[in-house]
Amino acid sequence: MRIDKRGPEQLRKVTVRKNYLKYADGSCLIEMGDTRVVCSASVEDKVPPFCKSEGKGWVTAEYGMLPGSCPERIQREASRGKQSGRTQEIQRLIGRSLRSVVDLKRIGERTIWLDADVIQGDGGTRTASITGCFIALSLVVRKLLAEKKISGSPIVDSVAAVSVGVIDGMPMLDLCYEEDSRAEVDMNVVMTGSGKLVEVQGTAEGKPFSETVLSKLLSLAKKGIRELTIVQKRYA
Amino acid sequence: MRIDKRGPEQLRKVTVRKNYLKYADGSCLIEMGDTRVVCSASVEDKVPPFCKSEGKGWVTAEYGMLPGSCPERIQREASRGKQSGRTQEIQRLIGRSLRSVVDLKRIGERTIWLDADVIQGDGGTRTASITGCFIALSLVVRKLLAEKKISGSPIVDSVAAVSVGVIDGMPMLDLCYEEDSRAEVDMNVVMTGSGKLVEVQGTAEGKPFSETVLSKLLSLAKKGIRELTIVQKRYA
Amino acid sequence: MRIDKRGPEQLRKVTVRKNYLKYADGSCLIEMGDTRVVCSASVEDKVPPFCKSEGKGWVTAEYGMLPGSCPERIQREASRGKQSGRTQEIQRLIGRSLRSVVDLKRIGERTIWLDADVIQGDGGTRTASITGCFIALSLVVRKLLAEKKISGSPIVDSVAAVSVGVIDGMPMLDLCYEEDSRAEVDMNVVMTGSGKLVEVQGTAEGKPFSETVLSKLLSLAKKGIRELTIVQKRYA
Amino acid sequence: MRIDKRGPEQLRKVTVRKNYLKYADGSCLIEMGDTRVVCSASVEDKVPPFCKSEGKGWVTAEYGMLPGSCPERIQREASRGKQSGRTQEIQRLIGRSLRSVVDLKRIGERTIWLDADVIQGDGGTRTASITGCFIALSLVVRKLLAEKKISGSPIVDSVAAVSVGVIDGMPMLDLCYEEDSRAEVDMNVVMTGSGKLVEVQGTAEGKPFSETVLSKLLSLAKKGIRELTIVQKRYA
Amino acid sequence: MRIDKRGPEQLRKVTVRKNYLKYADGSCLIEMGDTRVVCSASVEDKVPPFCKSEGKGWVTAEYGMLPGSCPERIQREASRGKQSGRTQEIQRLIGRSLRSVVDLKRIGERTIWLDADVIQGDGGTRTASITGCFIALSLVVRKLLAEKKISGSPIVDSVAAVSVGVIDGMPMLDLCYEEDSRAEVDMNVVMTGSGKLVEVQGTAEGKPFSETVLSKLLSLAKKGIRELTIVQKRYA
Amino acid sequence: MRIDKRGPEQLRKVTVRKNYLKYADGSCLIEMGDTRVVCSASVEDKVPPFCKSEGKGWVTAEYGMLPGSCPERIQREASRGKQSGRTQEIQRLIGRSLRSVVDLKRIGERTIWLDADVIQGDGGTRTASITGCFIALSLVVRKLLAEKKISGSPIVDSVAAVSVGVIDGMPMLDLCYEEDSRAEVDMNVVMTGSGKLVEVQGTAEGKPFSETVLSKLLSLAKKGIRELTIVQKRYA
Repeated sequence: MRIDKRGPEQLRKVTVRKNYLKYADGSCLIEMGDTRVVCSASVEDKVPPFCKSEGKGWVTAEYGMLPGSCPERIQREASRGKQSGRTQEIQRLIGRSLRSVVDLKRIGERTIWLDADVIQGDGGTRTASITGCFIALSLVVRKLLAEKKISGSPIVDSVAAVSVGVIDGMPMLDLCYEEDSRAEVDMNVVMTGSGKLVEVQGTAEGKPFSETVLSKLLSLAKKGIRELTIVQKRYA
Repeated sequence: MRIDKRGPEQLRKVTVRKNYLKYADGSCLIEMGDTRVVCSASVEDKVPPFCKSEGKGWVTAEYGMLPGSCPERIQREASRGKQSGRTQEIQRLIGRSLRSVVDLKRIGERTIWLDADVIQGDGGTRTASITGCFIALSLVVRKLLAEKKISGSPIVDSVAAVSVGVIDGMPMLDLCYEEDSRAEVDMNVVMTGSGKLVEVQGTAEGKPFSETVLSKLLSLAKKGIRELTIVQKRYA
Repeated sequence: MRIDKRGPEQLRKVTVRKNYLKYADGSCLIEMGDTRVVCSASVEDKVPPFCKSEGKGWVTAEYGMLPGSCPERIQREASRGKQSGRTQEIQRLIGRSLRSVVDLKRIGERTIWLDADVIQGDGGTRTASITGCFIALSLVVRKLLAEKKISGSPIVDSVAAVSVGVIDGMPMLDLCYEEDSRAEVDMNVVMTGSGKLVEVQGTAEGKPFSETVLSKLLSLAKKGIRELTIVQKRYA
Repeated sequence: MRIDKRGPEQLRKVTVRKNYLKYADGSCLIEMGDTRVVCSASVEDKVPPFCKSEGKGWVTAEYGMLPGSCPERIQREASRGKQSGRTQEIQRLIGRSLRSVVDLKRIGERTIWLDADVIQGDGGTRTASITGCFIALSLVVRKLLAEKKISGSPIVDSVAAVSVGVIDGMPMLDLCYEEDSRAEVDMNVVMTGSGKLVEVQGTAEGKPFSETVLSKLLSLAKKGIRELTIVQKRYA
Repeated sequence: MRIDKRGPEQLRKVTVRKNYLKYADGSCLIEMGDTRVVCSASVEDKVPPFCKSEGKGWVTAEYGMLPGSCPERIQREASRGKQSGRTQEIQRLIGRSLRSVVDLKRIGERTIWLDADVIQGDGGTRTASITGCFIALSLVVRKLLAEKKISGSPIVDSVAAVSVGVIDGMPMLDLCYEEDSRAEVDMNVVMTGSGKLVEVQGTAEGKPFSETVLSKLLSLAKKGIRELTIVQKRYA
Repeated sequence: MRIDKRGPEQLRKVTVRKNYLKYADGSCLIEMGDTRVVCSASVEDKVPPFCKSEGKGWVTAEYGMLPGSCPERIQREASRGKQSGRTQEIQRLIGRSLRSVVDLKRIGERTIWLDADVIQGDGGTRTASITGCFIALSLVVRKLLAEKKISGSPIVDSVAAVSVGVIDGMPMLDLCYEEDSRAEVDMNVVMTGSGKLVEVQGTAEGKPFSETVLSKLLSLAKKGIRELTIVQKRYA
């Protein structure tokens, strides 16, 4: 049994508070166990230069962790003067994942900014960010539709993400921090609601792994993402 | 009557969620109306050089706003690569205010980091940060005492803060954003539980003001801080 | 008696050298005792974006200290790669103070840059900067009028500043560095020539202070600023 | 047939010039088709803090592209003042990949720096960097052994990498730039000489992909890496 | 005799590989003994603001060293976040030297970027960069002419550079690193093909030197540059 | 005749105010015509790592220009966040020049910081900085001797600098800004009191120049530096 009494194939408890922020165009607070992420979406009426010529919009993401979100205080990146490599990697992943389910031509000359801020981190912050940002994105799209700024939804599928890993030789779904830190293999999977893969990032933490392990982890992730997709439908 | 139906001398509704964060040594979520700030306190076992020779500890603060906390998305300071002058001014104020009620000799060779992160901002974020950080500080001190790392509390008084201002010629307590943006005079007052002044920062936004106005605003602030002190007692 | 033999209510000797710099549009060297600040004003024919839409100009300030201005060499901010929080706080204060006496609509689509550079610092550098920058500003406005670039003066009042504080329980005017470093309360007051308050920033350095103290300090500051206003009239 | 006349399952021509640099402790120039990367390894006699307590060494990597390496001049990151998110992502991947085949305890209190600098880039620069850095690493280890600074080789397996992707619905091995830029799926695989997975990073560029596609790409990558491992054996 | 068996007035072996890079508009690899520099030239269709008004183009240069180019690994400036003073000095020198033989009016509203990247450094990297960048520049000009983007060559003379110095009292041509590091006087000379001086930078490393020494060094440099000019003619 | 009525071989009026700053260990204000530079020297009781092992001290310099020192306001490097290439080049030159007359072994484990800040710039700021910094250095050495921190003077010669150039074909001494900006050749010469060369930096601004011109400029510079050396003797 796992540290938090779950079975190996079980997600942590998922909670979503829709429209968590009063001022953001779309937002939610997503909790997966003790991991808590504020996701918000804002619309800006301009696009980066490379979109302009192609007459399309853009979706981009930024990610951060509050200093008090972890057992050891995290140094504020704003005061260090730069974002860490890890932060940049995560926000690029979030942006790419969300863009994979958006038809950029249909959002017009707009940039949708997705912000994922980790209030409390107990593993799986990047995957919770993706799952939550999709909800924030849906809400902002609904608003744009209501305001008649766009005529049809640019969202072509849903997208969610989950971590999987091997701990003590056993594949497990949705790792918490304690598990993540001693996993032999660690994998993040991003998948659409229709079951297609968007991103697969598997890393051997200790020693390299076989293709069989990769397969098992993928199935586990698929199961988890199916469940997360059901949660998303309720809110987005 | 004010935009949110309060009388001129009335505070917004104050709510505190103590130990809001699972991992921080001390924390709370403080809400004053729609302003919502996560305050956390962490202990680090070293001090800046200038404290070392004097055998004392240090208390310092950092402040930030989530990108989605305001109607207009706030650019992430971590990605801009530096903190704005406003941010630096605010975090210096928070640090100074909290140090005014701490006997630094009694915290040993430790730095207590206070982090105030604005989840939602509707005016008065710096004053709410001070009021909330005092609670986080009290909780961390309680923890240090329980762990017998220090032998007596270094906290010698409580401290809280509130904004006051003149709108349409009328002095008002605890301005929300809409009021703050059209105030003729804007003042932040930091005061101890025993009624002494720690900081007074009054600024003419439009045209300069008289000493009489300053006096009226001070009385109003005093009233508000007395009420906040009562709230703090319940949690800290 | 004070370290420099003044009475408690006495300003240090104030000297102004008008048009100290050959190339700046307006400039002066202001000395208050051993504090020596070069103030200069330059006109730039563009404004920040937020002014453009409102058809008004802008007045902004920057502040710096020469490395050799203090007993301990001050590290050059240009080589550290960023301005300290203190520097930013001061230059924001100078800018705000000067804008309080300027009708921005009347300077057209221009930015007036005020630069205050401390050649020698013996306390009160920020207040001397405000007092001196007003002179530099007046000179630059005179030049704009002479060149018929503007048709009426945008300056609606004069502005000056002074520090006051409590040392060994006694309120004193215009603190020098030695006094400032052991003051119990330290306050900077910015006031117009017509006697209205622009900024009041009082800080308890050691222990919190009462409202009575605040009142006494204010009266002292008023007296000092009246005298500085007379000096300004001679040059501006 | 492909743009450069290869079959879909064929690697580009691989060339290695061992000890390409006179001064580096270990180095090579690796070419895969028109992609040309200088890989070098240097030894530093200190480790990051987190290694010290564990009595182990460290292996880390940095990556860069010469401004003239691509059709469009690449802005020099040194003059922009920061490394892009892409650069950071790649150098983290290289470091992680190389560490997966090194027993850090056996390199003592040393950091081995791996530098991959792209002289000419025609796709697959990150995978060529990993393959080439393994050779540089082997050479530096051989040198440490010869100088009797370490007593046994810390290298426990070889490691190499290749890109695979789907172009016009067809899985292909070792994409050149032209292919990479229009791939529907793009995947980088890092594998050991013994056939175990170290990293799998698959990304849907256009639309999401199925697990079947993932499997096919993996087999293709395996084939390519087996061939690269043979090349490495000749030089490392 | 010198460490590499040359006579005091002898250049090291010079090798040039023209069009070394496939994608750059013009490029070469220049080797002077063990010093190896990749020089590339790229055309950008815009100019800095100060050129616009004068209807002329611009030629500018950037310089870098690969981390593994020297016996001691050189910290990557991109990861340090800024270019060193030395780097900036060198790239300013390269730019100035090349501009001295270009009629900027004849390149139209274009910037030609010259990049010199040291793959291996054994002294004289800045002078080799100048000599090599002239070749890259010539190639890019030839391309602009072929594409009929410009109608006549803007190059009015050739330019090359060499280092000279005094070692153990003896003037020597083209110092290698070992010589450079113990030279009493170190001088870089930039000269046109027609024998005119462009830059003379002589520095006393140990003790000051006489005018006679300066004269001797100049003659030596002249001789060297005449030889380099002949090499350039073959490639440019 | 020149713009300021001097003959071609005439220096501008040189004025020195010794101990210009109250707090710096050694300082002066040097004026050459309208160029005005504050030079100060400070002692720090530590050395950079590379000096430690050799048991010697260090002399280093920093340079800056006040925003109002020139006709066009100069952007503050502290607020831009970095020093320009020009600034770095100049401060490296000043440091090198001063070190050429100092026996670093005789200053002990100390760094002497030289700061040159241009209050007003009318050409020749770098050469005036060198000439003035030598005076500041002499004063600080005298202080170290008086405090018996060192037992003998580490200064082995004096050093001064001047600019020379060719304007309208005529060699001229000590260029003012107007002359400098239209000079065909521009040269800075640093020389010791005993007439030896320390640095020679000649640059063709427009078209390349002959060796004859170089010779004439050198003689002119020598004459100027002899006169500056006499001035220095009076103060240092």
